[in-house]
Amino acid sequence: APGKVWLVGAGPGDPDLLTVKAARLLSSARLVLHDHLVGAGVLALLPRDARRICVGKRDRRHTLPQEETNALLVELGLAGEQVVRLKGGDPYVFGRGGEEALALAAAGVPFEIVPGITSAQGMSAYAGIPLTHRDHASSVVFATGHCREGGAAPDWAALARPHQTVVIYMGLGTLPAICRQLVAHGLAADTPAAVVEQATTPGQRVVAGTLLTLPLLAQAQAVAAPALIVVGEVVRLHNTLGWFTQAASARPNG
Amino acid sequence: APGKVWLVGAGPGDPDLLTVKAARLLSSARLVLHDHLVGAGVLALLPRDARRICVGKRDRRHTLPQEETNALLVELGLAGEQVVRLKGGDPYVFGRGGEEALALAAAGVPFEIVPGITSAQGMSAYAGIPLTHRDHASSVVFATGHCREGGAAPDWAALARPHQTVVIYMGLGTLPAICRQLVAHGLAADTPAAVVEQATTPGQRVVAGTLLTLPLLAQAQAVAAPALIVVGEVVRLHNTLGWFTQAASARPNG
Repeated sequence: APGKVWLVGAGPGDPDLLTVKAARLLSSARLVLHDHLVGAGVLALLPRDARRICVGKRDRRHTLPQEETNALLVELGLAGEQVVRLKGGDPYVFGRGGEEALALAAAGVPFEIVPGITSAQGMSAYAGIPLTHRDHASSVVFATGHCREGGAAPDWAALARPHQTVVIYMGLGTLPAICRQLVAHGLAADTPAAVVEQATTPGQRVVAGTLLTLPLLAQAQAVAAPALIVVGEVVRLHNTLGWFTQAASARPNG
Repeated sequence: APGKVWLVGAGPGDPDLLTVKAARLLSSARLVLHDHLVGAGVLALLPRDARRICVGKRDRRHTLPQEETNALLVELGLAGEQVVRLKGGDPYVFGRGGEEALALAAAGVPFEIVPGITSAQGMSAYAGIPLTHRDHASSVVFATGHCREGGAAPDWAALARPHQTVVIYMGLGTLPAICRQLVAHGLAADTPAAVVEQATTPGQRVVAGTLLTLPLLAQAQAVAAPALIVVGEVVRLHNTLGWFTQAASARPNG
């Protein structure tokens, strides 16, 4: 009989932001496949004797190509294993969970999806930057700055709109180009923008400026991955609403 | 001494999708202000003797204007109360949490924000519609269909883009106009689109079609709020990935 695979979102970092369902699955897991980006605090919830396989990727150094991860999940499922596949954030938001679920479905392996708090939400709550706000942003868009081989460039015209919050995942390496493109496509150079490093963890750091100043600020402060870029008027609220490690934050007009 | 207010996301409906932190706060709450949209399953986690004040709004029938909710939170906080302010989904995604947090900050009342799984994520996981997918959608945007008095219309040009998933909150009442506008602004009439009613709950229902067919399908099947609209190629995956109450789902080409 086939086993079952749970594709589980591990959230943005703080283990307190796991869902109740994810925490329960982790606490009784026998076999866990996880990404590099899943934090130590989350992995500490696993039983001491659970088998752990790290299949994730950190930046461009892939430890296992996606196709091999898909194949491994199918193989374990068909062998009757109960597998927790743990992914940073939400499996269906830049998590490639769709590809893994399609492989499982094609092979007839039962699966469930457990959504997770995605990094943008964790950043928003902990850095005090609401993703929407009646006066400042009536929509929010999540995109990536990461141009994969053969992949399309971000749709700058769709991102550079007023009254919208833009959150860019995996964009730190191309921050200057991102800021330049958003201005080239119509956003004002003084649009508030920030990078948030290690959101929701004790290492959270917010560097805020504008599309014009942010690349130099981030460089000067040596911001490192994992980090999110957030652009829009809501970034101004960070100074007032940043209740978490507020002391460590840079000034929005710095 | 002032009390403290926790703005807590209650998630999309399934109590198992609360965060660990939210569940802990609820289980020991003495005083809870909650919206109508917070489900019975979540409220059942409160201590029997906790005081509950329903301040939310259902559709257009406001029980308490936002300004009065803000003022009540401030008043309770200044009076030294420990208040759990429970909001459907995520407080910073169409939750007006930013307005409440700003009022608390202005009054000097300490607060924390606990993010929640937003409806779009719950829908995505439980209906089998990944929000992003390497082959189908490189970005996802959340918008509202709800045109408030004095509020701006949705930015149709930003929403009607290829390789993007669009999730529209509070749009069921204007579904025909939404589908028409997306086509008028450039999406193909046969772009897959669905409405998902009561996502993540036992009453979840998925009605899928295209921008052309969806309004009539939703009317014929008497879809009712709360419901999300989701538009994009990823909607096609529902037939394969919809592991939750799959039997109740309509066909994508129906």
